[in-house]
Amino acid sequence: MLRIALAQINTTVGDFNHNIKKITEYIMQARKMSVDVVVFPEMAVTGYPPEDLLYKKHFIQDNLAALHSIAGQTKNIAAVIGFVDADSKGNLFNAAAVFYNGKVSGIYHKAELPNYGVFDEKRYFVPGTNNSVFLLGKIKFGISICEDIWTKNGPCYAQARSGAKVLINISSSPYHAGKGKEREKMLKEQAVFNKAFVCYANLVGGQDELVFDGGSCIVDPKGKFLAAGKQFEEDLVVADLEVPAAVKVSKNAKVKNIVIDKIYSRPSRLPIKGRITKKMGRIEEIYQALVLGTRDYVQKNGFKKVVIGLSGGIDSSLVAAVACDALGNKNVIGVTMPSKFTSRETRKDAHILADRLGMRVLEIPIGPIHTVYLQALHNEFKNTKPDTTEENIQARIRGNILMAFSNKFGWLVLTTGNKSEVAVGYCTLYGDMAGGFCVLKDVPKTVVYELSDFLNAREGRQVIPQSVIDRAPSAELRENQKDEDSLPPYKVLDPVLKEYVELDYSLSALNKKWSHPFLLKITEMIDKNEYKRRQAPPGIKLTPKAFGRDRRFPITNRYKER
Amino acid sequence: MLRIALAQINTTVGDFNHNIKKITEYIMQARKMSVDVVVFPEMAVTGYPPEDLLYKKHFIQDNLAALHSIAGQTKNIAAVIGFVDADSKGNLFNAAAVFYNGKVSGIYHKAELPNYGVFDEKRYFVPGTNNSVFLLGKIKFGISICEDIWTKNGPCYAQARSGAKVLINISSSPYHAGKGKEREKMLKEQAVFNKAFVCYANLVGGQDELVFDGGSCIVDPKGKFLAAGKQFEEDLVVADLEVPAAVKVSKNAKVKNIVIDKIYSRPSRLPIKGRITKKMGRIEEIYQALVLGTRDYVQKNGFKKVVIGLSGGIDSSLVAAVACDALGNKNVIGVTMPSKFTSRETRKDAHILADRLGMRVLEIPIGPIHTVYLQALHNEFKNTKPDTTEENIQARIRGNILMAFSNKFGWLVLTTGNKSEVAVGYCTLYGDMAGGFCVLKDVPKTVVYELSDFLNAREGRQVIPQSVIDRAPSAELRENQKDEDSLPPYKVLDPVLKEYVELDYSLSALNKKWSHPFLLKITEMIDKNEYKRRQAPPGIKLTPKAFGRDRRFPITNRYKER
Repeated sequence: MLRIALAQINTTVGDFNHNIKKITEYIMQARKMSVDVVVFPEMAVTGYPPEDLLYKKHFIQDNLAALHSIAGQTKNIAAVIGFVDADSKGNLFNAAAVFYNGKVSGIYHKAELPNYGVFDEKRYFVPGTNNSVFLLGKIKFGISICEDIWTKNGPCYAQARSGAKVLINISSSPYHAGKGKEREKMLKEQAVFNKAFVCYANLVGGQDELVFDGGSCIVDPKGKFLAAGKQFEEDLVVADLEVPAAVKVSKNAKVKNIVIDKIYSRPSRLPIKGRITKKMGRIEEIYQALVLGTRDYVQKNGFKKVVIGLSGGIDSSLVAAVACDALGNKNVIGVTMPSKFTSRETRKDAHILADRLGMRVLEIPIGPIHTVYLQALHNEFKNTKPDTTEENIQARIRGNILMAFSNKFGWLVLTTGNKSEVAVGYCTLYGDMAGGFCVLKDVPKTVVYELSDFLNAREGRQVIPQSVIDRAPSAELRENQKDEDSLPPYKVLDPVLKEYVELDYSLSALNKKWSHPFLLKITEMIDKNEYKRRQAPPGIKLTPKAFGRDRRFPITNRYKER
Repeated sequence: MLRIALAQINTTVGDFNHNIKKITEYIMQARKMSVDVVVFPEMAVTGYPPEDLLYKKHFIQDNLAALHSIAGQTKNIAAVIGFVDADSKGNLFNAAAVFYNGKVSGIYHKAELPNYGVFDEKRYFVPGTNNSVFLLGKIKFGISICEDIWTKNGPCYAQARSGAKVLINISSSPYHAGKGKEREKMLKEQAVFNKAFVCYANLVGGQDELVFDGGSCIVDPKGKFLAAGKQFEEDLVVADLEVPAAVKVSKNAKVKNIVIDKIYSRPSRLPIKGRITKKMGRIEEIYQALVLGTRDYVQKNGFKKVVIGLSGGIDSSLVAAVACDALGNKNVIGVTMPSKFTSRETRKDAHILADRLGMRVLEIPIGPIHTVYLQALHNEFKNTKPDTTEENIQARIRGNILMAFSNKFGWLVLTTGNKSEVAVGYCTLYGDMAGGFCVLKDVPKTVVYELSDFLNAREGRQVIPQSVIDRAPSAELRENQKDEDSLPPYKVLDPVLKEYVELDYSLSALNKKWSHPFLLKITEMIDKNEYKRRQAPPGIKLTPKAFGRDRRFPITNRYKER
């Protein structure tokens, strides 16, 4: 029997002291439970992804020093820890070290390096060629890292063929809605295919645009869960595995045998039954990803409080609710900035929302400022008609006011745009786009509604007033403005955006499927607003393809389909 | 004898019609000169780099259709053309096609894919394995693509060993100051090492943050230039190569022999002597890179005019001069936005500069607007002291005014920050950072001075007034403010920035070298201002490591050297 613990910790990029402290705490916790092997996520020492910090030699050295500082904690317990390894030529490897009794028994280098989507691993790492299996007493296990286990005939297969009955995978696998199911399916298939236990330790926490969802789990060789950890929280996932003793197998020249402890004998102990945490539903998952992503961005960047422009609309209402969940309502300040185009209803709703969330709200009317701008520009604009220029000035006045609060009091500005708006550029650069973090950047408008309904249902009350949910969306930058004056209804728009942005459908394929008159206009809006997105604040990735590092588009782009 | 022409053209990403038209024109021009082989840059059909456009299947198809539309133009002339190839599994290759007499004779796939710095080629492409040599009459040549020729034992070496006496390389090699010399040295070494002519066809033009500098050239097997093209301009570089006839060589299983035309006979023609364009000096090169990068960003994005906030300081003066060179002074509008902190001298200098450049200048005082902001915030700020908040409000008022002109008249805003400011965050997000293109983003302040001196010397008059050059730099956001109140002198700061940002020196190495008291503060400022840079407009890469796609840093980053 092998008692294994998956330590699903929340690391911080570059904070070696913090990460090592976490690792030490979880080793101690595992030791108290008489665990044989405790496993930490991919690059637990450095945090993930450290990006170009990896180009700094001293960063690599500090990571190695931090890693080895753990050695003393591993008496009678094996610890598998993700870090960055380097060879004498300066090549870097995404690596896992196995510590036991104060020494490194062996090291594994990730073989499959993802270099798509948000991943740039071939920018930094050399693929590993040191596949190994580890022997602890009579139990043989293999270690792989994230992407390695997503290929069927990859390192895990070679380990199983070399007699490994336990396949440990350490991951820092970024969340997107629906990925959990894919991952589960893949892990079960790997367990069955390789006739081995699969132990999957995933990172949890937010890092810039990424959220890691945890959900570490253990699958038995029949493809059944023995244990499954929490989502979006730290956790220690423990289970007892009835592993058959290792038998001699035909040697595979490509897989090394590493003996951790030949005569390892397990302490006598009461059995532990793995806990299987129930998976969240789709919308709850997205909501929790927003909460964790927001909390970690704010706090890991040294902020305590955030400020949000409350318009009385659904986007800012949802952002305020998420922020209160993430940081506590005492740390969230709303600012309403009414103009003559702000309706009495939206103004009232902003205050009702703040009241229901128990958050502070300030009011700064922007009318007088807008008037002085128009006076200042009057001469130069005198032969022109009012257009979006005058609208954008208002949005930018609001941006300036929020940033003034940020500068004066050290509050981080959360912006309130959603993915539908960011996609078509229905937002003002330096106006409503001004701020440190765009919570809903990867949430289509239709999902904004689903999340609001979810929140109200969870709370059993109208946290977000029904009038906010029911009112036709409007930017309120001119008289009687409605989003649908410039855009198709979001229920029509959102599926098109998904197909064009995330799935790379061609315009002709879209025309064939939808035959809407606006398709050309919409796709052109998406393309030409890349310049706005390039200057947008970061936001949480929630879909298979988010704006930001995930979708790398040229601004200068004259491509028109033939 | 082989007559070869290198067509150094300025392509546009995604604009197949434009690129094909260019290619056709240059083929015609080459045919008029009785050229045997005309060579176009890497990915000439698509423009470079198309980034995630490559994920669109229809983009690849349109690129193939565009490529093949050229076939009819290749009667009696071979054309080597960069494009994107695809196999039946959907793998993509960075490729070169050889056309001759209306047909494709052969295709080469780039073997060495750069995936560092600004390059993401492993994100899109599979490395080539179809190395070939091409036989045109009795002349054997090889084709390689950009990175391929930077490795000594790479595809070019194999081609030379298979009897190629002419090594053609097609490139889209982004400019940085000093790269030309490295490139020249490498090309000469390759020529001598492989005992072959090296014909290097490079792209010219700007694409977002990159400038391609052209400078295509032909080197003989002794390492001597036979011809060298213009820098930062389109050009057709032609030379006659006295190539020895191909001899039978031991077959290399890895290099295919492709016969273009066995009995190719050259027309009788008067000899052409290659033209060797004199290389620009370091500062002239940087200046021309700024001009070309600005012109192409503005025009390829469909703008005609630009607007610049003129402060009377050296940065905005230089940007205005570059813009006038790039677009013509009728297309450059300056706006001065004085406040009570604007000195009489800087205000006067802004007008003198505009006058000397012959550009239009508008004046919008910001005092009244600033006053109304402070009134609006008075209640909330009443127990606080004035600080950078009030300064930033002014910068953001200016940003709002410039963007109002942009929105109203369709002028692109050029921002005026330099690399030193962007590095340490000495700039206001949504304030002086607001705009579409940051011309000096990769120009350290000390180089701003060099460029200004160069410009005045070139013009033989004080285009940028001497008082602007001599005055101590100031943001003029409060009484008697000087940059050196918050920052060390730029002569001290700039070398440190280079070492920390571009060369990844550690803080301890910097301390050892400089032992300045401010080093810790400076490096912390650089790290913590990543959030500002993430929202900065694009600007022209001029150094080996620019901010933007070139240096990918996490915002959330708690790394402190031990």
